Amino acid sequence: MSAHDKSLAYPFSIPMRMYREQRERLGASLQQAFPEGGHAAVLQAASEVPVNSTDCNYLFVQESYFYYLFGAAIPDAYGAVLPGGKGILFIPRLPADYATWMGPLPTPHGVKEQLEMDEVYYADEMEQVLRCCGVHTAEVLKGTNTDSGLEVLQAKLPEGTALNKSTDYLYRVLSSQRCYKTALEADVLRYVCKVSSAAHVKVMQIAKPGMSQHHLESTFLHDVYYNGGCRRVSYTCICATGPHGATLHYPDNNCMIEDGTMALLDMGGNYRGYAADITCSFPVNGKFTEEQKVIYNAVLDAHDKVMHAMKPGVKWVDMHLLAIRTTCTHLIAAGILKGDIDTLMAKEIMQYFQPHGLGHLVGMDVHDVGGYMEGCPERPIKKDCCRLRTARTIEEGLYITIEPGCYFNAALLEMAKANADVKEHLNIEKIEAYAQFGGVRIESDVLVTKDGVVNYTTVPRTVEEIESTMAGAPFRKEVEVYHN
Amino acid sequence: MSAHDKSLAYPFSIPMRMYREQRERLGASLQQAFPEGGHAAVLQAASEVPVNSTDCNYLFVQESYFYYLFGAAIPDAYGAVLPGGKGILFIPRLPADYATWMGPLPTPHGVKEQLEMDEVYYADEMEQVLRCCGVHTAEVLKGTNTDSGLEVLQAKLPEGTALNKSTDYLYRVLSSQRCYKTALEADVLRYVCKVSSAAHVKVMQIAKPGMSQHHLESTFLHDVYYNGGCRRVSYTCICATGPHGATLHYPDNNCMIEDGTMALLDMGGNYRGYAADITCSFPVNGKFTEEQKVIYNAVLDAHDKVMHAMKPGVKWVDMHLLAIRTTCTHLIAAGILKGDIDTLMAKEIMQYFQPHGLGHLVGMDVHDVGGYMEGCPERPIKKDCCRLRTARTIEEGLYITIEPGCYFNAALLEMAKANADVKEHLNIEKIEAYAQFGGVRIESDVLVTKDGVVNYTTVPRTVEEIESTMAGAPFRKEVEVYHN
Repeated sequence: MSAHDKSLAYPFSIPMRMYREQRERLGASLQQAFPEGGHAAVLQAASEVPVNSTDCNYLFVQESYFYYLFGAAIPDAYGAVLPGGKGILFIPRLPADYATWMGPLPTPHGVKEQLEMDEVYYADEMEQVLRCCGVHTAEVLKGTNTDSGLEVLQAKLPEGTALNKSTDYLYRVLSSQRCYKTALEADVLRYVCKVSSAAHVKVMQIAKPGMSQHHLESTFLHDVYYNGGCRRVSYTCICATGPHGATLHYPDNNCMIEDGTMALLDMGGNYRGYAADITCSFPVNGKFTEEQKVIYNAVLDAHDKVMHAMKPGVKWVDMHLLAIRTTCTHLIAAGILKGDIDTLMAKEIMQYFQPHGLGHLVGMDVHDVGGYMEGCPERPIKKDCCRLRTARTIEEGLYITIEPGCYFNAALLEMAKANADVKEHLNIEKIEAYAQFGGVRIESDVLVTKDGVVNYTTVPRTVEEIESTMAGAPFRKEVEVYHN
Repeated sequence: MSAHDKSLAYPFSIPMRMYREQRERLGASLQQAFPEGGHAAVLQAASEVPVNSTDCNYLFVQESYFYYLFGAAIPDAYGAVLPGGKGILFIPRLPADYATWMGPLPTPHGVKEQLEMDEVYYADEMEQVLRCCGVHTAEVLKGTNTDSGLEVLQAKLPEGTALNKSTDYLYRVLSSQRCYKTALEADVLRYVCKVSSAAHVKVMQIAKPGMSQHHLESTFLHDVYYNGGCRRVSYTCICATGPHGATLHYPDNNCMIEDGTMALLDMGGNYRGYAADITCSFPVNGKFTEEQKVIYNAVLDAHDKVMHAMKPGVKWVDMHLLAIRTTCTHLIAAGILKGDIDTLMAKEIMQYFQPHGLGHLVGMDVHDVGGYMEGCPERPIKKDCCRLRTARTIEEGLYITIEPGCYFNAALLEMAKANADVKEHLNIEKIEAYAQFGGVRIESDVLVTKDGVVNYTTVPRTVEEIESTMAGAPFRKEVEVYHN
């Protein structure tokens, strides 16, 4: 494994044939869907996004479908994939004086070389070029991101372009394609997960009571960028400590870290569009109390049981149920919940302790596309499952998080107490002892193989690993392969 | 000075009375403009900005006019300032289940305490509350940012709100007000400038040939956040080395740092909306060559001459001319340009060597509002002045960058050679020796006082200071006060 690991050192170079393969897969689908020819997939790049009305922009983030096919971090470009997979990029023709401000202007020739693209032209040449290729219909994206509810970027062809536009096909085929990672994509995902894991270890080693949460965020951001080349993270870091750990997307990261509390750190780097999404939970002073161990080991057991059960053919909803059932069993054993496991599961009690799904697809988006699609199972209705971001049957090539959690969230516990069916199973006294606990989440990113998963997340997980790492012992873990 | 410095340590607490003062200034203007009453300024907060169509958002950046008046980093809020200065904030009424994801929901009572606001209500109560205060006309912002050309955020009152809206007055009065910094604002600006200066020193100390430019950016971002609490920077860092230094807004920061080159680093932290904007230029190996000294000292002399000339009453265009004339004089002395200074200035030759203005207003935006306004001088036409972001006469309370530069930009030099009037003054051989030089920019942020400026930028500036700092000597500089 270590020979391979060496090739994962910064700067990790993504071979352009990865994008070519992705275009070829789409090109084959196009050929099959439109045997009569004349249809090409046409996508539009993202534009720069200004910060409010100022002349500063946010750091540019390329639109994911476009980036996935063309590997080009160029704003305001277009790209076309022809049946068979030929890729043509159309770059904006910029005014000459941009060069003074932004550097040498990209030229078709230069971009073609750099991105190993079949052909590159200026955007104002698009219609002419495509018609020469026999294209009369631009298959453009049109669809709704099932995580955000937002419309995906639909290519607005440059003014005057008179190609027909079809809007039914592309979103479906491309979202589905993005779910199944190629071997080359897996290398990138593994790289960004490795870099992000190393940064989590660094944070764990510097964390101490008396610091501010923002010191943890800053250390992570620095580590993934400085050592891993990740100029941005895949989502705003969640650096929760103490009771803030019960806030699932805690946004502030500006409180003092109190001795005796747990940290819940959900942070992942982003490398050329590819995301990592990792959560570590640990005691801020480096030593678990017995009360902390109870919850931590409950969640770790859930995490590990799923890791040992995952393989093609299992249902994601069943994995979720396995996780929350495992956690629930521990909560009963610890006397926090009362009753037998089947009754508690039937009453959907875990909706109050893990108000989120077991995990989600990851790829170029941290909540990757394809969770709910035509032909895939619909969102479950049961209250302890309805937050799942997908209900798919697990298949080889999916890349997904396994992230069980257990939280003591005041608002949710009030709702639990107000539910007469559930209230009788709560040991109020024990639960109140956890009022300031916050929560634990353990999140790993795994690739589904033909008979199990590979866990790309290489962070300390057991109580012993965490305590020794925080005490300063060097930590090293290889990617773990599960044959289930 | 050191007692004051101590109060500038992190976490720097902005007193809420700063925002109150700002509302009171606006309230007084309102009273004067609308003596008949019934008019209130109504502003809208920014909304979260999604990254493309995903469910991730960019780190929230509050709209500057709103933030300036209310100090509230709350998305989707509204704020009203009544004649006399009473401030009323209207916060969004969020669904109860947001609490699970984002933490305890803000309440009017809690926000009122935290922000020391006169009154706080929910946004859906706005019309009723304002009518009770006798307001019938909402003065909303409407105007165009003269740096970006974008429309400023115009308050869209919540659906059904039947207040009259007036759109002429507020942009003008508030943009003008923002130009003149209060003593409390000056403290914040000084803090963020100090933090950013310290981060520049840190970067200078770790920079070495063989590193990547991104190591410099990452180090700066970490230092301003970890040590200064600046979760974001005021603009994308420019970490140019070698020839990239001639690209004014070099965006990539991903090249190897070559021995013998100059670095040009333009980076500034942002603290609760207040910006720093600092550029340092230095040899990446810590030791200036004679050729580097020529250009560096030319620009430093321009910087220093302006520093000693700035005071209320001088014209910014004259300061710009002083700077480029100074640099030009050095270029002649070094034999890079040929001819006498008056001839070269008359031919506007410096448009090819410093294709940007001397500086710009800074505040809550890095290119702050108010540069060109009704009643202020218009943009100059001369080609060596036309890039200026303001042509104002300098007044006490303005906060502005002084940032002369000198670049060897291939595209500009081609244009210079193509200009027969100018070509004869170019020593082509000498200029070609600088083909890979890139550029030098020296940028400081100064507050205009009654008889000069205070330079809040505390970084090494002379050749000796830079060389000794890069050799590892401790560096410490106090804010410099100029009585001119």
